[in-house]
Amino acid sequence: MQSRKTHIRDFGISIGSLPTGPRNKISDVIGVTVGHSTVKEGPYQTGVTVILPSPQNPFSHKLPAASFVLNGFGKTQGLIQIDELGSLETPIALTNTLNIGLVHDALVEYMLQWCRREHIPMHSINPIVCECNDSSLNQIEDRVVTKEHVFAAIHSASADFDEGSVGAGRGTVCYGLKGGIGSSSRQLELDGVRYTIGVLVQSNHGKTAHLTVDGQKVGQKLLAQNPLAAFSSPTDRGSIILIVATDLPVSDRQLRRIIKRAGVGLIRTGSYLGHGSGDIVIGFSTAYTLAPPQAPALQSIRILNESKIESAFEACAEAAEEAILNSLLTASPVTGVHGHSRRSLAEWLPHIL
Amino acid sequence: MQSRKTHIRDFGISIGSLPTGPRNKISDVIGVTVGHSTVKEGPYQTGVTVILPSPQNPFSHKLPAASFVLNGFGKTQGLIQIDELGSLETPIALTNTLNIGLVHDALVEYMLQWCRREHIPMHSINPIVCECNDSSLNQIEDRVVTKEHVFAAIHSASADFDEGSVGAGRGTVCYGLKGGIGSSSRQLELDGVRYTIGVLVQSNHGKTAHLTVDGQKVGQKLLAQNPLAAFSSPTDRGSIILIVATDLPVSDRQLRRIIKRAGVGLIRTGSYLGHGSGDIVIGFSTAYTLAPPQAPALQSIRILNESKIESAFEACAEAAEEAILNSLLTASPVTGVHGHSRRSLAEWLPHIL
Amino acid sequence: MQSRKTHIRDFGISIGSLPTGPRNKISDVIGVTVGHSTVKEGPYQTGVTVILPSPQNPFSHKLPAASFVLNGFGKTQGLIQIDELGSLETPIALTNTLNIGLVHDALVEYMLQWCRREHIPMHSINPIVCECNDSSLNQIEDRVVTKEHVFAAIHSASADFDEGSVGAGRGTVCYGLKGGIGSSSRQLELDGVRYTIGVLVQSNHGKTAHLTVDGQKVGQKLLAQNPLAAFSSPTDRGSIILIVATDLPVSDRQLRRIIKRAGVGLIRTGSYLGHGSGDIVIGFSTAYTLAPPQAPALQSIRILNESKIESAFEACAEAAEEAILNSLLTASPVTGVHGHSRRSLAEWLPHIL
Amino acid sequence: MQSRKTHIRDFGISIGSLPTGPRNKISDVIGVTVGHSTVKEGPYQTGVTVILPSPQNPFSHKLPAASFVLNGFGKTQGLIQIDELGSLETPIALTNTLNIGLVHDALVEYMLQWCRREHIPMHSINPIVCECNDSSLNQIEDRVVTKEHVFAAIHSASADFDEGSVGAGRGTVCYGLKGGIGSSSRQLELDGVRYTIGVLVQSNHGKTAHLTVDGQKVGQKLLAQNPLAAFSSPTDRGSIILIVATDLPVSDRQLRRIIKRAGVGLIRTGSYLGHGSGDIVIGFSTAYTLAPPQAPALQSIRILNESKIESAFEACAEAAEEAILNSLLTASPVTGVHGHSRRSLAEWLPHIL
Repeated sequence: MQSRKTHIRDFGISIGSLPTGPRNKISDVIGVTVGHSTVKEGPYQTGVTVILPSPQNPFSHKLPAASFVLNGFGKTQGLIQIDELGSLETPIALTNTLNIGLVHDALVEYMLQWCRREHIPMHSINPIVCECNDSSLNQIEDRVVTKEHVFAAIHSASADFDEGSVGAGRGTVCYGLKGGIGSSSRQLELDGVRYTIGVLVQSNHGKTAHLTVDGQKVGQKLLAQNPLAAFSSPTDRGSIILIVATDLPVSDRQLRRIIKRAGVGLIRTGSYLGHGSGDIVIGFSTAYTLAPPQAPALQSIRILNESKIESAFEACAEAAEEAILNSLLTASPVTGVHGHSRRSLAEWLPHIL
Repeated sequence: MQSRKTHIRDFGISIGSLPTGPRNKISDVIGVTVGHSTVKEGPYQTGVTVILPSPQNPFSHKLPAASFVLNGFGKTQGLIQIDELGSLETPIALTNTLNIGLVHDALVEYMLQWCRREHIPMHSINPIVCECNDSSLNQIEDRVVTKEHVFAAIHSASADFDEGSVGAGRGTVCYGLKGGIGSSSRQLELDGVRYTIGVLVQSNHGKTAHLTVDGQKVGQKLLAQNPLAAFSSPTDRGSIILIVATDLPVSDRQLRRIIKRAGVGLIRTGSYLGHGSGDIVIGFSTAYTLAPPQAPALQSIRILNESKIESAFEACAEAAEEAILNSLLTASPVTGVHGHSRRSLAEWLPHIL
Repeated sequence: MQSRKTHIRDFGISIGSLPTGPRNKISDVIGVTVGHSTVKEGPYQTGVTVILPSPQNPFSHKLPAASFVLNGFGKTQGLIQIDELGSLETPIALTNTLNIGLVHDALVEYMLQWCRREHIPMHSINPIVCECNDSSLNQIEDRVVTKEHVFAAIHSASADFDEGSVGAGRGTVCYGLKGGIGSSSRQLELDGVRYTIGVLVQSNHGKTAHLTVDGQKVGQKLLAQNPLAAFSSPTDRGSIILIVATDLPVSDRQLRRIIKRAGVGLIRTGSYLGHGSGDIVIGFSTAYTLAPPQAPALQSIRILNESKIESAFEACAEAAEEAILNSLLTASPVTGVHGHSRRSLAEWLPHIL
Repeated sequence: MQSRKTHIRDFGISIGSLPTGPRNKISDVIGVTVGHSTVKEGPYQTGVTVILPSPQNPFSHKLPAASFVLNGFGKTQGLIQIDELGSLETPIALTNTLNIGLVHDALVEYMLQWCRREHIPMHSINPIVCECNDSSLNQIEDRVVTKEHVFAAIHSASADFDEGSVGAGRGTVCYGLKGGIGSSSRQLELDGVRYTIGVLVQSNHGKTAHLTVDGQKVGQKLLAQNPLAAFSSPTDRGSIILIVATDLPVSDRQLRRIIKRAGVGLIRTGSYLGHGSGDIVIGFSTAYTLAPPQAPALQSIRILNESKIESAFEACAEAAEEAILNSLLTASPVTGVHGHSRRSLAEWLPHIL
């Protein structure tokens, strides 16, 4: 039943006005790769998704980073240090709410091994682990994610990663439909040079009635046309994680301003940042690495002329909006715990537009 | 040329799903009044708008308050203390960017006199003064607002105040059209009791192409249908001030969460929180006053069961969205400095919908 | 070699002016208990300390809570939700930096079991896990803490808990001396009613030269009198966790203001909030529990008249200062990884004062 | 009666361990100048102090800047934009609480004129105006500061400015003694290059009993030796403003971390960040100017290797501590409203040490 059309652009809808990158994914930012481990066994519909910011060891090659909490009913780990130091030093992992401790532990182990191989002393590390609550489809209390899932996700990472009901998006529900992993990117030009902003989301938020596709009240139409279908989602267990990557040279403050606009894209799809939703944005730039301890006291970096930041705001908002729509359209239907199931927007959208 | 239809509901468009209050204004929160002083003389198109939170002296009857900075390229005064103490102790004044010092001074004088009359010792006061940059229509450098404008605005305050090109909204520009003062309210019910959330905006933000009316891309249609009309607004001098009033019993933290959703309403109208825009939300609750210094050490207050906060979020988002649309539709066209003029959305909307 | 005098008051030094509670511990706040699991085997000198805020299930009886990040080079988990919702829903666990994922996982398991026993549905939980880096004495990379340590710490919790080189304080180093767990409390009176503020610290911060005891530059004297002793600590791996409990009726904003003053106590002992230190304060009040989802929409709480908050500030600062000094004086010397050892201030202080 | 010894170093007390700059003032950061206008007529004891960050027009040559609110019971204007954009675009003015609106207005006028002279279009400006409440000595309600005082303060600015009971420090009270303007600086070396951090304070905070001079409980001794002297200050009307300048190349995030440590210096002198005190730190770096709008999209800046930031923290804490002590020692006694008077620490300190 799944439509052949799996991304919003397949439906002839272009979100915003800026061009996408070649893949229309976060991996259009060169060096960024994504991997998944998916659990799909009866009542267990969950997984792990990992974003590797670059091929380099992130502990010895720290990237400028920033976070923004749109709504803080969430458990994301690692933001205190990002806010203080403006840097990222591990891959970013996404999973379900009750497995973040274990995934954190796995990331520590992974980074210890990596650093040991490269003879880099490492006694402290700040893993970034984000979560959505997938208990609508996944028997979350059994916490079936293992360290091996984390390692496998990392090892499978590539620029051509899957979207939809995979990895940490396996059991998520978005606007009462099947949510999941979605991605998109935008390009912008400054002084003749092209830069990219890419977004990846784990979507698990929103009420059906609010779903908006490029301004169209698709959720309301969906409910009107299908009065007997059960779309209603528990209002209290939402969340969306938005990961933003860019190759723009920016300071961490500028980056924080840019990634905050991922919330604009989120709201355009119909979210009002519901109470029970942990709506979190984390971003990093690959434009430079931060000086290691043994380097000289001063480091030259390039940052953005603040008055040229406007198009980066628009790019981030557009890519976030499209990434969420792509998460809905790439998501295949999933049946999980207690036989609960969620269908894909891809199935309905052709009949609504 | 101005249309008879002056509010979005006159066009048959209901924003959101919650009912409005009887006036569909911030003054549906009992006790809240609003006054204006308007300057409209050739190149001078500006003014002062004042929101009085209650008939009581706000210094001796402090209300719980909160603020949220959506984008901080703005000069609003008084937020440090609101954030620290969670309370409001003066009326809230809105004006143009270069007159906030003077308006601050006037509010100090006004409060000194009020307290003197009531024999309340007052050596320190935290006036709240917000601003938008109206230099597109107003010769802002001449700073024509006077203290008398502030006093007159206060004295004219009523629950039946004007919207549109009045007071601090006289010279503002929104989505390339005439902006101004707009208001709306929503009612919600909790345990059988009705509560109100009201919003008032001073709108001065956004690009024409982004204007969205209840999901419809009105801005793009406007540009397509009127290729010769000049709607373009300077991108760098925006701002929107959103004032939220409620009679809901809430803690200041809860209030902050609620008023943050005014940003959702703003984004629904097409804003992406542009770089040059000081997008600021300030809110207060009239549900209780804070204990004065001489009162006992403990005070009983009623707050919201956090899990019932959802409808307040929706109410605030809806009222903010509608207040912005009302600011556009109630605004009469204005011609000001250098003969620049801005037309009203009320003139165009009938031909677009 | 350890002195019989184990608390700063044994040396005739009274910190500040407010009276202590009967135990001079965080457990003077009725209901608060503390438990430890200590690992002390050769190169492994670490452990877990757990603070139980009350005998009740904290998930179904949420307490008002607040956090304050003095310096964010730390990995504490759970603060996003505390900041958003102002509530605590699990015990607070302290451990070493590289074991927080595992301890988080154990707290999830513990709370799942507790809630299952009481038939409380629980699909989401926000464990609070704090850390210090004890790698000076502990072979931290081997991450020897297990879930059983967490459970054992919880089960051993009592109001008469040990201080010093125990639990999460086993391997910590403070001002170049042996740090550890320390506690203190203060009482204050408001309108004839006595309230308590208690502090517990995991101390692992500071340079020897800066150690200050009630204004006396003990660190400098220590270095002067013992030029051959090696007190120097690595400057880059500090941290202090300060947990504040109170029975004062306060809003979460008021609580945040109060616990921020734990930083005052910290600075009085000689800290300047060094770069590499994760200096984190977390506090809760036992004065009321937050309404559960099924309760009415409004809840009455008592909060503090803001103008009476002064003595709570002083109490928190004093208790934090004394808790740190007590952590130094109760700490027995420890030898750990690579034969590194740290001596106790209790050994030196009699010769310095 | 004023002592010849007017700075803490005259008493043989060296605060901290880092060397001072040649002037031991904020103006050791090259380009920084300070000017005062002082009102001293009977009940009117107040004034204006202005810090000019550089000889260049600060609007067209914006400097990186940061702020930190230690306690927010204050009215400082302009911090929203500093936090958002990380930049300073006007001189910084200090005055009394009830005159900040007027001083703001004067700074706008001053900047309009400056920009007009240089043909720089300016329609928006973010003046930084800080305040302390000097109503113990000054009849603050009469608000005697005028715009001319602001202009005169600016025009008198020099690197060799006065400290003590001058300008905005004329009527301030600190630890029950005469407070005022004080300054100090520190030098630090990184990779063989010398950098300077300077601090200027307007001191108006604290209880006599808490005054601490380099660890010595001077306040308690003062009270013990002079039981009949009236030192008590109203506890509720404090405040301290701390302005930090540096020539260190830093990002605004790094600058914020550094200036936060001015709070460490403040606490070392005996403050616990009292409830009624607006304790505000604002800092800027002269190491580079931010690219103007017309400049290329990218700008190269030099920032600090984060792991070398430690000495800047210590320098800022030491300079802030010493600046406060200097404000107390340079302050001449003042008699003002209702015949109230405050004496100078310089008078007492020789008898206490």
